[in-house]
Amino acid sequence: MVCEIWTPNRNTDKSIHQQIFHYLEDRIITGEWPAGYKLTPQRKLAEELNVHRSTIVNVLEDLKSSGLIEGQKGSATRVTTNINAFLTNGNRVNWDFRIKNAIYKESPPFLKTINNLELDSNIIQLSRAELADGFFPKYQMREITRLVGENLNYLGKEDPKGYFPLRESIARHLKNYGINTSPDCILVTSGATQGLQLIALGLLEKGSTVFLDTPSYLYSRHAFQSAGINLRGVSMDEKGMIPFEICNLRNYQNRAAIYSIPSFHNPTGIVMPPSRRNSILEMCLKQRLPLIEDDVYRDLWIDEPTPPPMKSMEGGNSVLYVGSLSKSLSPGLRIGWTVANKQVIERLADIKLQLDNGSSILPQHIAYEWLKGQFYNEYLMEIRKKLRVRRDFLLYMLEKHLGGIASWKVPTGGFFIWVNLNKCKSVHHLYLRLLNRGILIHPGSIYNEDRHNYVRLSFSYASMEELEEGIVVLAEELLKL
Amino acid sequence: MVCEIWTPNRNTDKSIHQQIFHYLEDRIITGEWPAGYKLTPQRKLAEELNVHRSTIVNVLEDLKSSGLIEGQKGSATRVTTNINAFLTNGNRVNWDFRIKNAIYKESPPFLKTINNLELDSNIIQLSRAELADGFFPKYQMREITRLVGENLNYLGKEDPKGYFPLRESIARHLKNYGINTSPDCILVTSGATQGLQLIALGLLEKGSTVFLDTPSYLYSRHAFQSAGINLRGVSMDEKGMIPFEICNLRNYQNRAAIYSIPSFHNPTGIVMPPSRRNSILEMCLKQRLPLIEDDVYRDLWIDEPTPPPMKSMEGGNSVLYVGSLSKSLSPGLRIGWTVANKQVIERLADIKLQLDNGSSILPQHIAYEWLKGQFYNEYLMEIRKKLRVRRDFLLYMLEKHLGGIASWKVPTGGFFIWVNLNKCKSVHHLYLRLLNRGILIHPGSIYNEDRHNYVRLSFSYASMEELEEGIVVLAEELLKL
Repeated sequence: MVCEIWTPNRNTDKSIHQQIFHYLEDRIITGEWPAGYKLTPQRKLAEELNVHRSTIVNVLEDLKSSGLIEGQKGSATRVTTNINAFLTNGNRVNWDFRIKNAIYKESPPFLKTINNLELDSNIIQLSRAELADGFFPKYQMREITRLVGENLNYLGKEDPKGYFPLRESIARHLKNYGINTSPDCILVTSGATQGLQLIALGLLEKGSTVFLDTPSYLYSRHAFQSAGINLRGVSMDEKGMIPFEICNLRNYQNRAAIYSIPSFHNPTGIVMPPSRRNSILEMCLKQRLPLIEDDVYRDLWIDEPTPPPMKSMEGGNSVLYVGSLSKSLSPGLRIGWTVANKQVIERLADIKLQLDNGSSILPQHIAYEWLKGQFYNEYLMEIRKKLRVRRDFLLYMLEKHLGGIASWKVPTGGFFIWVNLNKCKSVHHLYLRLLNRGILIHPGSIYNEDRHNYVRLSFSYASMEELEEGIVVLAEELLKL
Repeated sequence: MVCEIWTPNRNTDKSIHQQIFHYLEDRIITGEWPAGYKLTPQRKLAEELNVHRSTIVNVLEDLKSSGLIEGQKGSATRVTTNINAFLTNGNRVNWDFRIKNAIYKESPPFLKTINNLELDSNIIQLSRAELADGFFPKYQMREITRLVGENLNYLGKEDPKGYFPLRESIARHLKNYGINTSPDCILVTSGATQGLQLIALGLLEKGSTVFLDTPSYLYSRHAFQSAGINLRGVSMDEKGMIPFEICNLRNYQNRAAIYSIPSFHNPTGIVMPPSRRNSILEMCLKQRLPLIEDDVYRDLWIDEPTPPPMKSMEGGNSVLYVGSLSKSLSPGLRIGWTVANKQVIERLADIKLQLDNGSSILPQHIAYEWLKGQFYNEYLMEIRKKLRVRRDFLLYMLEKHLGGIASWKVPTGGFFIWVNLNKCKSVHHLYLRLLNRGILIHPGSIYNEDRHNYVRLSFSYASMEELEEGIVVLAEELLKL
């Protein structure tokens, strides 16, 4: 074994870079190469291992940043002088390298930044896609929690598909939308997020492509990407996704599914009319393409009831329907659902079992109490009134302070106004200036690179005063740009 | 484009099989090949596409089973005669093929079977690794739920690491074990299951190898495997994992981590003594290998307090510590924790955000109420007394009915007795016979292929009467084998 010269294996999943890193790392941490040991020069090492010199340069950079080797420009690279002390001082595991090469990729930095900023209560949130705490039905929720607590007998292992009475009440609730389904075809998830993640892991091929609205919700985009799915945009007009573009996909070999938010689309607020829904569904059926229908904003219509979901228009095999109580009731409850045929639901439940061993039972009991009678529907009527006031107020503020220098469509529900800042050249700049003044918006550029003159403003979270302040400052900064 | 002859691309993640399947499927569903269209003969098709004939045979088999083509032996393969009706009848999406080729693999069938059987209340559960409902602290849980409900103000978006006061109380709780940590280094998870899954996805390289106790807990094995991690066993003696075997891993290039359950190991019940813990930890540190310490049974000691965890013996960088309330309090609460350095926890929290957008808040409030004072510790004292009675009873039954034909070690805590049925040749046979009589055990063979004469018996779930009946029948069936 000692006489054999090691070279990286080219017939494996592992990159050459990773293999060489581990090989060199091993020589050092096993003590084979002691402190101060002079490494073979880069050029020679590259020859010996039969790789590009640039690969060696990169690996040595990683070893250097993890503290195992040292060397100034021009002098030889050596194993770190105090390597033994270094290794015994708890620096043994090289997490940087591990994180960089792990199965799941890190979230894009802007996603992390925005997520942290959205938790900052000192910032005016024109960004957060969530109902303000003033909407929260505190007294009903307390009453329901009391009721659930009083009847608590045991919190044991449950069906991974979720609490059966909850699935029954979701089925009844979905019937109001025209979806005919049964508890067997429903999986309770931790919000819609988990539904999308389970679909990605359990039904899609690695490296295949999901087609989705452009612009599109950044977290759902990320849900697919982190699982190793490629994304391609489908253009939208004022009615949503354009059917002709889906028709063109028939020659695209790696197509896996269509993903769309047809009701109160995030970020544009667009509602797909029934005829468009029909065309999109037809296009998918023709190509045997699953359609992932993300319908989390459905219950939040303001002006008129949302058109029936595409799920209600098909035979039950092609549409994967994702819904949730996170937008309409409470994101902290973590209750959502995925509806599909039984085979698909069993598959997703099997993966859910692997990922989290099923959802917590108490929140499911609470969601059941909300959905079983008229509680939830009555609550929604109140929410709609309040949302309408906020939307109208934000529209009024926009008209007052941005009339003439920006344009927008009136959303008929949901949380967002998608504002075109006609002459804005860099919405990222504007975002930073507003942040500097304590106001958070979503720049359009994070939804789609070429939306550099759009912002997404949410009217669901900030108070009226904050909405006003936000728009006043937005107008000021816009004029300064 | 039309003139070009399509051939599969060999420089992609997608298998040749998948590519050809999709290519042929597309010809049919786009109507290019209409109903009754005669396909090119297998041999010729294989030549044209430059692949083995067996590949074509397999692809055609898949197309046949999905209803797109038909053909009797000896006659030509044709596109299904009623293909148009078939495609409009909701048979458009081929879920079989998609599930087979998706990113995550399906659970092994026996895992699904056992999981379903464990939910069957008509079966005597000598299998379920869970406290019986008689242990459930119903009145305290009701009281706590009432308290939490009364003080409920808002259930909004939270820090993905989990509810801060809960993380503080977990940190305090871990101090009892000798682990010094802070809320920043703790991630609240949906049981230990999710912790393991996040570690696999967020810190391990695809195709790398985790080394673990042999035999080992089947669900945790699966948590790694479904994410694409390889497993290799490390032999155990009566003190647990053998350090020398880890020493030997230094030449194993793909090593990613060690995984162990050092306290009341599942399935053997072994407790690693402090000196062994020290050696294992040293071996890991020397090789810069992360050690995943799964400590979910820690609180369930019966005879004497569990030795300090390995996490308490290191500098804070190498041990990934996984704990939970699922075994000791309630699996349905879905509260667990992962403890590591801040960098690692932030990485895992980022993935948790992608997977489920954070844990439900109510169960976290409830767990906080349990852990913040002496509630949980007082409860544990009660549990230990009851567990001791059950363990002793099962030991007595074993002695009475299996004395001389089986052997076992007395477990000093946890849920299991790992019984060696000295002369049993096929424990799988025994498992089936017992199941036939309404009794569920875990055959040793599901933990490790060569444990064909072991069974794992759980004393935590079945009633005393059921324990007795179970052992009587086990003895009967064993003698019949």
